[in-house]
Amino acid sequence: MITKDTNFLIVGLGLIGGSYAKALKNAGYSVSALDINEESIQYALENKIIDKGDISEKRLIQEADFIFICLYPTLLKSWIEENQQYFKSGITISDVCGVKGKIVDATQEILRKDVEFIASHPMAGKEVSGVKYADPTIFEKANFIITPTDKNTLERIEMMKELAKILGFTNISVLSVQKHDEMIGFVSQLTHVIAVTLMNTNDNTHLVDYTGDSFRDLTRIAKINENLWSELFISNKENLVKEIQDFQRELEYFERILQNENVEEMKRLFIQSTERRKLFDKRK
Amino acid sequence: MITKDTNFLIVGLGLIGGSYAKALKNAGYSVSALDINEESIQYALENKIIDKGDISEKRLIQEADFIFICLYPTLLKSWIEENQQYFKSGITISDVCGVKGKIVDATQEILRKDVEFIASHPMAGKEVSGVKYADPTIFEKANFIITPTDKNTLERIEMMKELAKILGFTNISVLSVQKHDEMIGFVSQLTHVIAVTLMNTNDNTHLVDYTGDSFRDLTRIAKINENLWSELFISNKENLVKEIQDFQRELEYFERILQNENVEEMKRLFIQSTERRKLFDKRK
Repeated sequence: MITKDTNFLIVGLGLIGGSYAKALKNAGYSVSALDINEESIQYALENKIIDKGDISEKRLIQEADFIFICLYPTLLKSWIEENQQYFKSGITISDVCGVKGKIVDATQEILRKDVEFIASHPMAGKEVSGVKYADPTIFEKANFIITPTDKNTLERIEMMKELAKILGFTNISVLSVQKHDEMIGFVSQLTHVIAVTLMNTNDNTHLVDYTGDSFRDLTRIAKINENLWSELFISNKENLVKEIQDFQRELEYFERILQNENVEEMKRLFIQSTERRKLFDKRK
Repeated sequence: MITKDTNFLIVGLGLIGGSYAKALKNAGYSVSALDINEESIQYALENKIIDKGDISEKRLIQEADFIFICLYPTLLKSWIEENQQYFKSGITISDVCGVKGKIVDATQEILRKDVEFIASHPMAGKEVSGVKYADPTIFEKANFIITPTDKNTLERIEMMKELAKILGFTNISVLSVQKHDEMIGFVSQLTHVIAVTLMNTNDNTHLVDYTGDSFRDLTRIAKINENLWSELFISNKENLVKEIQDFQRELEYFERILQNENVEEMKRLFIQSTERRKLFDKRK
């Protein structure tokens, strides 16, 4: 249960960690933060985004009732291994990782048995990073996905739903780790691969004068954080490779019907894509 | 030269033809229209989008100083062949076709020698069609591209630039037919192929609850007019097939480095796509 007295600790005060801190502070909670970057901590303290902050102070861990680990996926497990000796008994820990398969089981495996790790994924972001851009409004129309395992309790799943509402998410759902990673492979990762690949195919930057909104919308996500996304892609490699291959097969098929000037089949594909895409309009 | 007395005739009163008519009427010109659909003509007359209109009246052709043929590419040449006997001597004719290679030479070839056809392409549109959606504000941030050949005169090129400004375009440029079609193959057609193919790869409409702006932006243009775009794709087949193949090669390369977990190369590609994409932001 989250109460007025719940002490939150944010580990990793970047864009998401900072936005979580702001949202929780706005809702009246006590928020501390740890970050290896002293400037980020200073900025957050000066701007009252957090109540307490430090680069390494273990007392902040000892005081926490809920720890949000907002680090890159590869750092999650090692941070817990190094710091779980300081955890209060009974606390809840969550993360923000965009891929779950490689990290959830591994984290629960090494975790102290008197605390609970329940994974979650805020499907929100910006094309910039750092606490200076922290902005809880990015959660407003975003999805918050909780990915419990059989080691998680119903109570904590409910608690995470409650917390997601406090953070400002309107779309909150629960998915298995496997379903989550398959979904992410298509909805998020394949689309990023396509946008990046389109920008890299040829250097067409001389065409900037002729591009309209369609091209800009399609390639917006080609601006990508190379450290985070290379980690995310590799940790979801099997799902993503499958999605890329499925897409490639469909593209080869399209090329063939274009080569053959098969107008009727081309029209069928256009009608199908139009119908399917319309379904994605309605929720907006 | 365009003067206050220039009589414009729009042939084909759809979204673009209707938007041209509105823009010209707003600017104070006399505008007539021909369309095989009587309802479109009625609608345009009732809403004062045009001064005169009919489904076949040849007098409208005889009165015109400037004819904008806003028909599908395959209909352009045959309309001219059937109707050029009614043209006043010395008039100017333009079109709105999204692909130029197959039509410009062929049209100039069969045209009466006392009139001038100068091709142009308004890179504007909406995901709807018909005169009821006519809206000249779609031209505001769009490109107007004039594609002259050696049969065109400098005077008419200047006249088209002047006309483009009257229509409300801010970005006006002149390109050869060949450069235009190469550019369109990449900027417009490949992007539509990608969006359509992404929607058609698998039926992922059950994922609608999890999609965010990235996916929606990337697939918006998968809603596509099947009759128009199948024509446009086939009439630019060679350029488009080359673009698809270049993109496929780049995608296969990406898949390989993902399979091999070549993190450094993946990061290099992300940095490159980010840098290139940033150049497309600045113009907005």
